[in-house]
Amino acid sequence: MDYLNSKYLSKVVSELSKLPGIGRKTALRLALHLLRQPATEVEALGESLLLMRTNIRFCKHCHNISDSEVCEICTNHTRSNGQICVVSDINDVMAIERTGEFNGRFHVLGGVISPMDGIGPNDLNIESVMPRISNEQISEVILALPTTVEGDTTNFFLYKKLLPFNLKITTIARGVSIGDDLEYIDEVTLGRSLINRLPFDDTLKRASVK
Amino acid sequence: MDYLNSKYLSKVVSELSKLPGIGRKTALRLALHLLRQPATEVEALGESLLLMRTNIRFCKHCHNISDSEVCEICTNHTRSNGQICVVSDINDVMAIERTGEFNGRFHVLGGVISPMDGIGPNDLNIESVMPRISNEQISEVILALPTTVEGDTTNFFLYKKLLPFNLKITTIARGVSIGDDLEYIDEVTLGRSLINRLPFDDTLKRASVK
Repeated sequence: MDYLNSKYLSKVVSELSKLPGIGRKTALRLALHLLRQPATEVEALGESLLLMRTNIRFCKHCHNISDSEVCEICTNHTRSNGQICVVSDINDVMAIERTGEFNGRFHVLGGVISPMDGIGPNDLNIESVMPRISNEQISEVILALPTTVEGDTTNFFLYKKLLPFNLKITTIARGVSIGDDLEYIDEVTLGRSLINRLPFDDTLKRASVK
Repeated sequence: MDYLNSKYLSKVVSELSKLPGIGRKTALRLALHLLRQPATEVEALGESLLLMRTNIRFCKHCHNISDSEVCEICTNHTRSNGQICVVSDINDVMAIERTGEFNGRFHVLGGVISPMDGIGPNDLNIESVMPRISNEQISEVILALPTTVEGDTTNFFLYKKLLPFNLKITTIARGVSIGDDLEYIDEVTLGRSLINRLPFDDTLKRASVK
């Protein structure tokens, strides 16, 4: 245990080292850095954390983070194109938004079904997808969950739930990343990309649409 | 720029990414982690930062961090052994305390003389060493500054300042680390360790004292 000489410093170090990927050494380095900063800087950080935790809300439709009851994507009428993309987490919304390829709405499950961790369908935002399908005239649900056993289980569970609605249910393509060398790709991904091969003129057309 | 969907989240990410070694991606990961934690956890972190910055003080004798006007080392009479170890930074106090080999007091300069960065002797806690020498009956000053050009300059500056006091002025030994293979040591360190070689029976005696 380090000799810290101040209970305030010691408290900051122990709080910071609870963060993922930050050990005691990094926490101490960060704390000492903050001590050298002007008080206003540290106050800005401390207060931004408190404000975030108390003020951030989750959109009542899609469960994405939001500053208001309904998020910006759900209030944006140009994004009401009949598509909902189902993702596991908030980060996934950001990742898809960065692509600029999707102009529909999201639905954040808040995780995937994982019996090992005691997470069942009722712990996730699954039921709340159903009312959206008629309310928002959804014609396609795009499943973009992780490619794990848990993700596949959740995909299948959702598929069964959505079947009666007579929708187009799709899942994002898995395949070789752009720019990757074939020899370094794992065999499952490469195999999948062979099974799911596309007509070449189809890919040409899609590239030109963008 | 990321699509963050909340000005509170966006503020936290920009504050966290000001920290050393934390980029925007890590900041976002940390912020989303904090969002998933119970509110009390985030409050504990935010408040500990604010408390640290407002309550921590610097010891008026040694300039180490302290919760009171005079730090625990300076108030501890068993550490008044006539030795002062001069270090550049608070972290160095911690590093020396971890060794358990030093039982005197410290003096934290708050940096080293660096004309390139505009840091002169008056920007550092140098003058405040002098009154301590008679007040605390100091017989030895141990210089433990970094082995850089700036550290050497500061060493020399202090040496000249301390010369009139008729003290023992020492500097920590530079040499091959314990457990290191000679072939991997840089030549300056290895060369220094040859120049500063010690009588073997001397090292035996010192090891047994501990």
